[in-house]
Amino acid sequence: MKPFRLASREYRKEDSIVIIPATEESVSIGEGYCTIIAGPCAVENADQYIDLACTLKSVGVHILRGGLFKPRTSPYSFKGLGIEGLEIMEEAKKKTGLPIITEIMDIRELDFMYNTVDILQIGSRNMQNFSLLEEIGKVDKPILLKRGLSATIEEWLLAAEYVLNGGNTNLILCERGIRTFEPYTRNTVDIGAIPLIKELSHLPIIVDPSHATGKWKMVGPVSRAAIAAGADGIMVEVHPEPDRALSDGKQSLTPENYKKLYSETIALAKLGNKKLK
Amino acid sequence: MKPFRLASREYRKEDSIVIIPATEESVSIGEGYCTIIAGPCAVENADQYIDLACTLKSVGVHILRGGLFKPRTSPYSFKGLGIEGLEIMEEAKKKTGLPIITEIMDIRELDFMYNTVDILQIGSRNMQNFSLLEEIGKVDKPILLKRGLSATIEEWLLAAEYVLNGGNTNLILCERGIRTFEPYTRNTVDIGAIPLIKELSHLPIIVDPSHATGKWKMVGPVSRAAIAAGADGIMVEVHPEPDRALSDGKQSLTPENYKKLYSETIALAKLGNKKLK
Amino acid sequence: MKPFRLASREYRKEDSIVIIPATEESVSIGEGYCTIIAGPCAVENADQYIDLACTLKSVGVHILRGGLFKPRTSPYSFKGLGIEGLEIMEEAKKKTGLPIITEIMDIRELDFMYNTVDILQIGSRNMQNFSLLEEIGKVDKPILLKRGLSATIEEWLLAAEYVLNGGNTNLILCERGIRTFEPYTRNTVDIGAIPLIKELSHLPIIVDPSHATGKWKMVGPVSRAAIAAGADGIMVEVHPEPDRALSDGKQSLTPENYKKLYSETIALAKLGNKKLK
Amino acid sequence: MKPFRLASREYRKEDSIVIIPATEESVSIGEGYCTIIAGPCAVENADQYIDLACTLKSVGVHILRGGLFKPRTSPYSFKGLGIEGLEIMEEAKKKTGLPIITEIMDIRELDFMYNTVDILQIGSRNMQNFSLLEEIGKVDKPILLKRGLSATIEEWLLAAEYVLNGGNTNLILCERGIRTFEPYTRNTVDIGAIPLIKELSHLPIIVDPSHATGKWKMVGPVSRAAIAAGADGIMVEVHPEPDRALSDGKQSLTPENYKKLYSETIALAKLGNKKLK
Repeated sequence: MKPFRLASREYRKEDSIVIIPATEESVSIGEGYCTIIAGPCAVENADQYIDLACTLKSVGVHILRGGLFKPRTSPYSFKGLGIEGLEIMEEAKKKTGLPIITEIMDIRELDFMYNTVDILQIGSRNMQNFSLLEEIGKVDKPILLKRGLSATIEEWLLAAEYVLNGGNTNLILCERGIRTFEPYTRNTVDIGAIPLIKELSHLPIIVDPSHATGKWKMVGPVSRAAIAAGADGIMVEVHPEPDRALSDGKQSLTPENYKKLYSETIALAKLGNKKLK
Repeated sequence: MKPFRLASREYRKEDSIVIIPATEESVSIGEGYCTIIAGPCAVENADQYIDLACTLKSVGVHILRGGLFKPRTSPYSFKGLGIEGLEIMEEAKKKTGLPIITEIMDIRELDFMYNTVDILQIGSRNMQNFSLLEEIGKVDKPILLKRGLSATIEEWLLAAEYVLNGGNTNLILCERGIRTFEPYTRNTVDIGAIPLIKELSHLPIIVDPSHATGKWKMVGPVSRAAIAAGADGIMVEVHPEPDRALSDGKQSLTPENYKKLYSETIALAKLGNKKLK
Repeated sequence: MKPFRLASREYRKEDSIVIIPATEESVSIGEGYCTIIAGPCAVENADQYIDLACTLKSVGVHILRGGLFKPRTSPYSFKGLGIEGLEIMEEAKKKTGLPIITEIMDIRELDFMYNTVDILQIGSRNMQNFSLLEEIGKVDKPILLKRGLSATIEEWLLAAEYVLNGGNTNLILCERGIRTFEPYTRNTVDIGAIPLIKELSHLPIIVDPSHATGKWKMVGPVSRAAIAAGADGIMVEVHPEPDRALSDGKQSLTPENYKKLYSETIALAKLGNKKLK
Repeated sequence: MKPFRLASREYRKEDSIVIIPATEESVSIGEGYCTIIAGPCAVENADQYIDLACTLKSVGVHILRGGLFKPRTSPYSFKGLGIEGLEIMEEAKKKTGLPIITEIMDIRELDFMYNTVDILQIGSRNMQNFSLLEEIGKVDKPILLKRGLSATIEEWLLAAEYVLNGGNTNLILCERGIRTFEPYTRNTVDIGAIPLIKELSHLPIIVDPSHATGKWKMVGPVSRAAIAAGADGIMVEVHPEPDRALSDGKQSLTPENYKKLYSETIALAKLGNKKLK
């Protein structure tokens, strides 16, 4: 018997579709859809973020991402704008009509995020922060649960089980690369995780090729691979000036490069009979 | 330049010694000492824990361990007795005069742990729970920081940096095995981490051979290796009846096996000119 | 400076195309082409192999694979038919007009392989058998060099360098999964290796999803991912009765499942403007 | 049932002791003994090697090591002196009366090694070169089989099984570090492999801390750990001038540092009731 229950395909045969409400048009994430989440690693300032959001909207993005509280390996790195950044994201949301996603690192941040944020992200480093998972399981908001840096598929689905067991079934999984011995790339995308999750679970799964590879040139090919393997979407980092980004510039696409990725992704989605919203 | 500062050997040339106050006799952890922490994975009931504590005291243990809130991979596993268990540990502490250590998973647990617990443990899964690290950095209690399952030495020292940067310098590192491809053992003890940490940092380092190997027969040899390599102590799981343990029975020593380990460890400590308290 | 020279993109800007001569029509492997190599893990008997070869020819395979000398982890496992199997492959080659590939484990096998085999494969376990690489570098036959189980991209390209340095430039790389901590799959396909090799080197790269995943259900999705990421082809295991295969049955496709894979692969190849021969 | 037979503890309950004949006094390797093998990574020139051999003899080495054919990752690195170097080793053997060990990469090297070399080493990269293992299984010479870079304990014992199955039972295992994600050290010593091998098999096991760590400062602590964990010996690199070594200088001890290591190792061996020859 598998150790996970609510997350298993046996528990629920049909694919789960998570609906993200939005002012203009809601977004569906799950089997049969191809969803693109894009934005900078961190929200850095109002003008830049809102401009980028409008550009992204015009070139076909479904959900806006932006980091407010960044889990940085060093205590001395830029950790995000926090609450101030949330106001910027709210403004971008109003201007574009697109839903927004940001990472929650501590349940105490929920109070001020709740009314504005559309998807709460649990980052890799917190995938087994069981205290946070239990709290988030009680919230009525869609959750995106990133795979831990060296989590097995089973541990990942058991982390999902914590959220589902709390009552929150609006859950999306996100493969973001695992840690291996290979030094050329930041992490190694486990492309096989996509068909495996589809076999073992009913939950939607998307891929984050930016964090997984750490190199913007690889984001295109790995995104295409993800969609071709059956992923329900991708989450990519886009920055107007990657060289000046306060974090993760090396893995960020320019809006121009994003356009190319978008058209390639759409072509693959069509080949796989996936809808865009 | 190394990315960690306060944790570095450059910042502080002499070895840090962490003093754990105790009713009878305080315990010193750091270079020149050999400290043994022992106890069951989880506190299961009062009689069993207090009996075991008294036995351990009589066969030479310096600090008592016991889990109250267990970070379990599955939401359906036994998660510990919580507050109720703390009262049991407090009773054991009174009877034996030994200091106690337990894991803190959420800063909200600090309130009731503060007066009783002598060392707060940050578990592997929370090594990069930066929110918790920042809070714990403000607390005036010794901290034991376990290495993450796949954390590099640098990431581990940067997690330590979070705690030190908050002002709490009573910090002990604990190597507990890293995740590799090898399926025979639960994890692979990184024995080289001991001389590396001693070279890069002034912080004390101990080893947990129980979690690292997952097999009680390996606890003895790996403990000896740790002390021979220069570790400042070990933390081992002991259970009166390992076969009936609610968690981690396979890696627990019986009190009888512990005695053998103790005498071997003491012999090695003497050979390395290490004091016992 | 990169440690590899002849394998580098700097040494040769244009993509290398390896031409495999064949009685009917030669096969080109490299950028702009999509090549499919298929067949059973090991040649088991004449009727079965020749029947399968004819079936594969009819459903669109470009090169036939078949193991004669199998590098088995245990000395007690089936090790292949050896020379006897070669005669069977030769017969299949005559009947179908397709070129054949098989693994060479020892340079002493070259004598009887030379006249019949069209591509010599160096297996993962021999990727750093430098003695064999040096010998194979002197041979005027196309070589397929599989990535070692835990070889970095750099080590792999340096193994290629051994072959190129010997004078043999008809070299194809094959990603076949790397060893990680994940137990669900046999290995983890490093999908990022495809764009990385394309950036660093001029050599063709194909993917073996059968060995990489160890599960036939994953072969389709991972093959699609490989082609979408830019691989120049795939090598898959097909067996008429996977349940009765003497080796690797669990990862083998039936001819029926192969047909589905073929049409999906072809559709993706067209989308990526790749020719089929 | 375990997949290995002849290598298993079930097949042979008592510990195997491998006797290395020598002009002066034979050397026993196995449970109850502590054997030290030392020498430079590669034999570089006659004067240097013979001088070093005499020094090592005077400070307590049991077996001399020296590389003749080096398996180098790059084809452009120094690959050893080959046959010429063997004459130098032979001279050192005569002068010191110590047995010698060197790596065999290709069975064709056996002819000229056979009369001089006392232990043939199979390197990590050839641990699954089954062709070589089968040949070496027929030879009546002691074999030292290094663990592959990412070989599991089971795969290692199955490689040993190839040698034993050929009839050669004079087999010694050598743990030399496995590949993990940690970048600070070259490899990660799997210290737990020592008690595991002792439990699963009757074969002797030694540890190579030089290749395993890649840093000479770690060689001492890791050697001590190995002996304390129950290893039957160590194999270390010593070079008169590490900074000028043609290979592996960073991990080589000076003869002066070796002396310190020797006395520490001897003290631990005595504590563990191990004889020195």
